[in-house]
Amino acid sequence: MLGEPRNLTLLMDLYQLNMAYAHFRNGTHETPVVFDLFYRANPFGNGYAIAAGLETAIEYLLNFRFTQDDLEYLRSLGLYDEEFLRYLRDLRFTGDVDAVPEGTVVFPNLPLLRVTAPVIQAHLVETALLNIINHQTLIATKAARVVQAAQGDKVLEFGLRRAHGPDAGLYGARASILAGCEATSNLLAGKLFQIPVVGTHAHAWVQFFESEIEAFRAWARAFPASVLFLVDTYDTLRSGLPNALKVAREVEAAGGKFLGIRLDSGDLAYLSKVARKMLDEAGYPDALIVATSDLDEYLIRDLKAQGARVNVWGVGTNLITARDQPALGGVYKLAATQVGSQMVPKIKVSDNPAKVTNPGVKKAVRIYEKSTGMAAGDLIMLADEPTPTGPAITLFDPVHPWRRKTVEGFEARELLVPIFRRGELVYTPPPLSAIREYVRQELATFWDEYKRLVNPEIYPVDLSPALWKLKNEMVHAVRGGGP
Amino acid sequence: MLGEPRNLTLLMDLYQLNMAYAHFRNGTHETPVVFDLFYRANPFGNGYAIAAGLETAIEYLLNFRFTQDDLEYLRSLGLYDEEFLRYLRDLRFTGDVDAVPEGTVVFPNLPLLRVTAPVIQAHLVETALLNIINHQTLIATKAARVVQAAQGDKVLEFGLRRAHGPDAGLYGARASILAGCEATSNLLAGKLFQIPVVGTHAHAWVQFFESEIEAFRAWARAFPASVLFLVDTYDTLRSGLPNALKVAREVEAAGGKFLGIRLDSGDLAYLSKVARKMLDEAGYPDALIVATSDLDEYLIRDLKAQGARVNVWGVGTNLITARDQPALGGVYKLAATQVGSQMVPKIKVSDNPAKVTNPGVKKAVRIYEKSTGMAAGDLIMLADEPTPTGPAITLFDPVHPWRRKTVEGFEARELLVPIFRRGELVYTPPPLSAIREYVRQELATFWDEYKRLVNPEIYPVDLSPALWKLKNEMVHAVRGGGP
Repeated sequence: MLGEPRNLTLLMDLYQLNMAYAHFRNGTHETPVVFDLFYRANPFGNGYAIAAGLETAIEYLLNFRFTQDDLEYLRSLGLYDEEFLRYLRDLRFTGDVDAVPEGTVVFPNLPLLRVTAPVIQAHLVETALLNIINHQTLIATKAARVVQAAQGDKVLEFGLRRAHGPDAGLYGARASILAGCEATSNLLAGKLFQIPVVGTHAHAWVQFFESEIEAFRAWARAFPASVLFLVDTYDTLRSGLPNALKVAREVEAAGGKFLGIRLDSGDLAYLSKVARKMLDEAGYPDALIVATSDLDEYLIRDLKAQGARVNVWGVGTNLITARDQPALGGVYKLAATQVGSQMVPKIKVSDNPAKVTNPGVKKAVRIYEKSTGMAAGDLIMLADEPTPTGPAITLFDPVHPWRRKTVEGFEARELLVPIFRRGELVYTPPPLSAIREYVRQELATFWDEYKRLVNPEIYPVDLSPALWKLKNEMVHAVRGGGP
Repeated sequence: MLGEPRNLTLLMDLYQLNMAYAHFRNGTHETPVVFDLFYRANPFGNGYAIAAGLETAIEYLLNFRFTQDDLEYLRSLGLYDEEFLRYLRDLRFTGDVDAVPEGTVVFPNLPLLRVTAPVIQAHLVETALLNIINHQTLIATKAARVVQAAQGDKVLEFGLRRAHGPDAGLYGARASILAGCEATSNLLAGKLFQIPVVGTHAHAWVQFFESEIEAFRAWARAFPASVLFLVDTYDTLRSGLPNALKVAREVEAAGGKFLGIRLDSGDLAYLSKVARKMLDEAGYPDALIVATSDLDEYLIRDLKAQGARVNVWGVGTNLITARDQPALGGVYKLAATQVGSQMVPKIKVSDNPAKVTNPGVKKAVRIYEKSTGMAAGDLIMLADEPTPTGPAITLFDPVHPWRRKTVEGFEARELLVPIFRRGELVYTPPPLSAIREYVRQELATFWDEYKRLVNPEIYPVDLSPALWKLKNEMVHAVRGGGP
């Protein structure tokens, strides 16, 4: 990552290593198993999420190995024997991974990532995979909402100072760009992920000088080709804007370019309207008005509804921390265990029906209506079921199975693609710019009703009849006889 | 950090570098300035915050240098000239830093950290310092609340899988321990910060086996000396607990030790009471009941009020993400600029009175009532004012100056201590265990009224008369004449 790739092999909950050890001592550690990574509810009351984090997860898996240093630390815990530590020394990730590509529009209960590996490995990678994918999917989804609220205006990611440490700033910036933000203020993210960086000046720049106009002139001397002033240090309308316009004329007279202004406080609807008028009257109809100040998707929507004349929205804290819901809640659950040569489905039953897992090795299929090209529903199926081919398909709601919907003339698309096979990377992560374009295309295949910011229509994610039957039988077996 | 220290020099908002360049081109880049880092409101409606992050900030400043790679990236942006890039190549942090030690109980507007440095450096370090201190102070404060709610029960930090990336998990674990949590599940945090790690097993361990009792037996074989079972995979009272007790007897008969159980779902008040009874009746009055399941300080308080018989609380998502308020909102504001040989106070005025900064080079003093040893109030003063020595002191509220409070017989303690002098580290960060003990002592000097979880009394943080006068004069000068 930063020069050398970071080795995050120890980034796990201790219980993963304890389970690894217990399997090792039990002789069951190399039993192949299948785990699904999925989440149970869309964040922010949104109608969907944007999958993100796969590239980081791939890096992590490629670098998975316990260093000598790690092993010495583990020895110092006094929990494990030498034979196990020797086993760990040589351990690499040798499993299969299937995942939805980054930028895919996803829904609750869809497997975002599926690990097929010896149980010891599947346990050891759980925490880091959840950490990475939970975080990046959360921020990408928040960013998609903010971008949607901006209705085509540019959105900039400005949250580094409020992010939960360096990584949260870096990967949060990447997730934001992935989901449609235009640029970030985060210079290191710019370097690491080749994304556009932007920035002007702070209030401190203005305060440093004897007067605001002196500060603006000094700024314009450094960046004559792209001059943008923060105008609210003392008084936006009486001091900041008049000074900005005065220096703008000087800049343009000297062959420079006045780009616009930034508003960082006050009533952005009112101030932007007055500022627009002043800029227009001064002969700068193309000058940009950038707004920052604790923005989020709701504020942007409301400001636009009130006729705010903002061209560019800089969004900080509320985006980078996913303020209104700072955790996605993705989980990683055992779906199957090999017994002999058979993958035997496994289920976790709970008093809460939403928490009963879907058993077995599964795939996810998206059904597109041919006549419109729009997504009609997703289907979670057993991996060995044939992908449906039509002419018509009937989807049914797994919670309310009497709710049915028939699609005539459809195409089915498998959502999970192979990422690792026997520990070898078989996937080429696309460049971020391509993922960004893919998000745009993905979102275009969903009706607006699923994309409303508030109270969206629930997109159907159904189970195939075979999976539904298997699940019901397993629930009854557990609840009936008891294990 | 991870082997080699990470170079985070580029971890900044681009505008810092733009301001650095503009100062460089303007010839003002080496002007000494003073910046204060502070926050304006306690998070979570709490009555205080626990300062954290200084050790990470020190590491960052010690490693501050642009690598060749960084400079090439900056060149590629096309914003800066070669002379500036050469200057950056040789740039190190050469300033002074004063800060409150980690673990100090702090309040709004107190300077947590003060940077005195050439303006170019002061700008370049702003974003990373805010990122580090905002995050760690936030999590430490949340952890202090959770620990308080647990009333002496142990609290474990279990949030890694929901943290905002690897760093958020690592530094969040450290901040949690600092503020009173007992241990973390985060193995890498355990290694890096020498903190205790704990963990048992997941539901997947139980699901893997043909039956729950078989799973428990296999677990006990691996860890006979400390056996703790997760009992809610199928049915806590009818399956999990009876199976746990059966295997507990086998374990103890064979010379092992049954430690207790973990509950991860269901009604924790009811289940823990029944479990306690079953454990006691089975002859295990010392067996622990560990509870996990979306806990936070409110749930723990309520469960305890309902008589829950939980001994150890594992807190994940809500702690590691500071769920109810995932950003502290700390800022970094210019306080003074050197003109000639004088440090001239600077102020930022705002329509919002709470956002008007305190001008000048300042110190922070805590007043302790000698008779009780309890903190009576804090005082923000100009650095060149003498620290008050008594016999009595009158504190007044800077927002409502008619509110006064006289303390007879007091001791004054300066809160900021020297960390860097001319770029040299002059401070030895204490070990985490010492900081943890310091937090305990710090909190003991504050009356309970300031520490209530909900609606705490507001602790007085006042301005010295000299600072108050300076601030008022400067506000009037700005608002009266205009700059």
